[in-house]
Amino acid sequence: MAEIDDPRLDGLPLAALFELLRIPSVSADPARAADVRAAATWVRDFIVESGGEAEVVETAGAPLVVGELRASSAPEEAPDVLCYGHFDVQPPEPLDEWESHPFEPEVRDGLLYARGVADDKAQLWMQLVGASTLAAEGRLPVNVRFLCDGEEEIGGTSASEHIAADTRGAKACVVFDGGMLAPGVPVFNLGLRGFCYFHVTVRTGERDLHSGLYGGAVLNALHALVRALDGVIPVDGELPEPLRRGVLEPSAAELADWRSLPAGAEVIGEQGAVPADAAAAADFYLRTWASPSLDVNGIEGGSPHLLKTVTPVVAHANLSIRLVPGQEPDEIREAVESLLRIAAPAGATVEVDLLASTPPVLFAHDSPAVQLAAGAFERVVGRRPLFVRSGGSLPFAAALAGRGIPFIGTGFDLPDGNVHSPNERLRVDYLPLGVAASREVLLALRALE
Amino acid sequence: MAEIDDPRLDGLPLAALFELLRIPSVSADPARAADVRAAATWVRDFIVESGGEAEVVETAGAPLVVGELRASSAPEEAPDVLCYGHFDVQPPEPLDEWESHPFEPEVRDGLLYARGVADDKAQLWMQLVGASTLAAEGRLPVNVRFLCDGEEEIGGTSASEHIAADTRGAKACVVFDGGMLAPGVPVFNLGLRGFCYFHVTVRTGERDLHSGLYGGAVLNALHALVRALDGVIPVDGELPEPLRRGVLEPSAAELADWRSLPAGAEVIGEQGAVPADAAAAADFYLRTWASPSLDVNGIEGGSPHLLKTVTPVVAHANLSIRLVPGQEPDEIREAVESLLRIAAPAGATVEVDLLASTPPVLFAHDSPAVQLAAGAFERVVGRRPLFVRSGGSLPFAAALAGRGIPFIGTGFDLPDGNVHSPNERLRVDYLPLGVAASREVLLALRALE
Repeated sequence: MAEIDDPRLDGLPLAALFELLRIPSVSADPARAADVRAAATWVRDFIVESGGEAEVVETAGAPLVVGELRASSAPEEAPDVLCYGHFDVQPPEPLDEWESHPFEPEVRDGLLYARGVADDKAQLWMQLVGASTLAAEGRLPVNVRFLCDGEEEIGGTSASEHIAADTRGAKACVVFDGGMLAPGVPVFNLGLRGFCYFHVTVRTGERDLHSGLYGGAVLNALHALVRALDGVIPVDGELPEPLRRGVLEPSAAELADWRSLPAGAEVIGEQGAVPADAAAAADFYLRTWASPSLDVNGIEGGSPHLLKTVTPVVAHANLSIRLVPGQEPDEIREAVESLLRIAAPAGATVEVDLLASTPPVLFAHDSPAVQLAAGAFERVVGRRPLFVRSGGSLPFAAALAGRGIPFIGTGFDLPDGNVHSPNERLRVDYLPLGVAASREVLLALRALE
Repeated sequence: MAEIDDPRLDGLPLAALFELLRIPSVSADPARAADVRAAATWVRDFIVESGGEAEVVETAGAPLVVGELRASSAPEEAPDVLCYGHFDVQPPEPLDEWESHPFEPEVRDGLLYARGVADDKAQLWMQLVGASTLAAEGRLPVNVRFLCDGEEEIGGTSASEHIAADTRGAKACVVFDGGMLAPGVPVFNLGLRGFCYFHVTVRTGERDLHSGLYGGAVLNALHALVRALDGVIPVDGELPEPLRRGVLEPSAAELADWRSLPAGAEVIGEQGAVPADAAAAADFYLRTWASPSLDVNGIEGGSPHLLKTVTPVVAHANLSIRLVPGQEPDEIREAVESLLRIAAPAGATVEVDLLASTPPVLFAHDSPAVQLAAGAFERVVGRRPLFVRSGGSLPFAAALAGRGIPFIGTGFDLPDGNVHSPNERLRVDYLPLGVAASREVLLALRALE
């Protein structure tokens, strides 16, 4: 742990961060519900111990933590600033690809490894520590309202519903749940794709049959599933027309910015991936930020490993589509369901359950909040943030847009951070950098009326 | 047991059959290995006590019993006839669905209930008793070579290997391990499909990625697998041309026979299944007996149930193709591999492992052995057997074909015999009928040169 002996870390509550990282708060796993709750309690306690007020708020899903650190002086006149982060994490599987235990944080070569370190526990910690240290110094200039989420990774809507229901609004919302383009190159994410996530079940009969005695005559659920998926997956990079409806083109200015970004082929190569099709690398930003995309996220049926001579009658898939500004989740949902059913062979029953849905959003780059925060980042990080978009989805950002709250979406993950993959990691020197940035942003936002 | 007071059973060793049925010789259960061996010993002792020679032969798996009852006179000039049966049984579970104990034979309403009674213990007993009674009467006209299997229910290959290694060959092989089409309607099964069974692994990158951040730009292994499978699964009931190469059409006589069988729609409906395509029900026997068929037997990848927003980089499938006479496993294996690779998108790596392979077999319906045995059945059962095929695969039959030994595959099970299910049963009046058929077949086969 020698690498943690960095003077910039002096006085920062690292032990508390490690405690949070050790909690396996996998929101997708019902067996981990108590761990998600333990992470919520950790967040609540952190805010209360910093002199604020906070509570664990029950929801239909995982709990939220709602808390507040009031401005050090004249709080009734200070602007309200929301700070959002999430304490749930992705499942760690496949476990055998981790070089250290996903829930036992470990520092190697200046990097802190743990499931959720980048997405989003250490980044939530940066914001908590930024506000609490300003408060401790008696110079917190805004009322910081924390909204901390326990179901971000499963597309939960409790945080969004909280924002939608909160008529007080806010002058800005700061979210550290993203990354830099490259070391030292911060970005503000002003656009997020929406998404619809589906579970599909295909059934073709009452019981699996012997593939020798019946093969060729009876409908195989795996064949039916393959045909159904043929109806929605892209051909040469192009989705079926009903899934491309409504797409608004990005502005020329955005396109120009994006051309200054690293080449798509390089980004894809760094991820150990291959382009989806011949144009996918050249169109990387257009594809991931400004175009809808559909991915089959999981598939299951029959006996995939043991030699078993069956014609399976049940098959499952998870699939999701990302949406861009101009597209309506309800319309796209109907189109996906319809395309799956049309493509499935006669005799197959296709059940389509929507597991989660979020609309796409795009925020103005020239709002005072965004401009003030960009200045703060420039002072701390040394470079003005690029205004980009994200291919990801954030129901919470859609709720902010609905309330007219400017969104400052940024963060300290790096492209090799292995978010959602084994060996998730974050640079140790970005822990104090993130805390400094959080502080500078809060100081800058005092100018908001 | 009043129903067993049937004069046709007089003098038959029923007590010995009950003894065999009481042995829980479940080959799939390692804890039952001693019972499988006890059943082998029973078979050996039966042959020895009938005046023959027999031994329990050790194999890598369960033991075989190899024995012989020599012709009553001039055995060196008598033809050699193989008789095959198996003394292992399927697991009896679920036990609570049995109306009487699976290993305590019981007669109810003219039916003898026990695990393995139809598959295959009482049918093996018919052949043992048929030969031994002829021997006792001093008129066994052929040398009966018994080959009795202790691992048929687990796909063991020891019996096939024994045949393949035995350069003596035989004039015919009689197997009572099948059923009648309906009461009083015997069938001879002359064809079995071959098969090639594959495990397919598709890889598209080093690690799963976030489907928001990379979706639309990187190749998803599940999409690649779906595309690869598109290259081999049937379209409207038709396989790709390379998988249909070499298929020999069934004879007009066979097709005419098959038209007298129960309608395909009825067979499919009874199994709770739906037809694979519009023509599958009408072509049921053509599809399952005389056409190659390809089934994906299992599929796996990514997160099929938990909501996880990933682009998976590994996908697995098991798939198998059944082959018909005229098709070579090696050629079809290459064609399947090639079609999968051609259909997969650029950038995906496709590994194809062959897990098992068996050639198709078709025995001539007009061989002297088959014709003599059919005549014997007609005399005993009152109706000439229908010549049918099976869609399944039998390495043992392929081994016989390899040695040029005609196959007489028949039996006395009925469609409601509950083979492999609880309450397995066999008609009591088929015990003397089966013994009579076995005797008449052996008497008829003396004409073989």
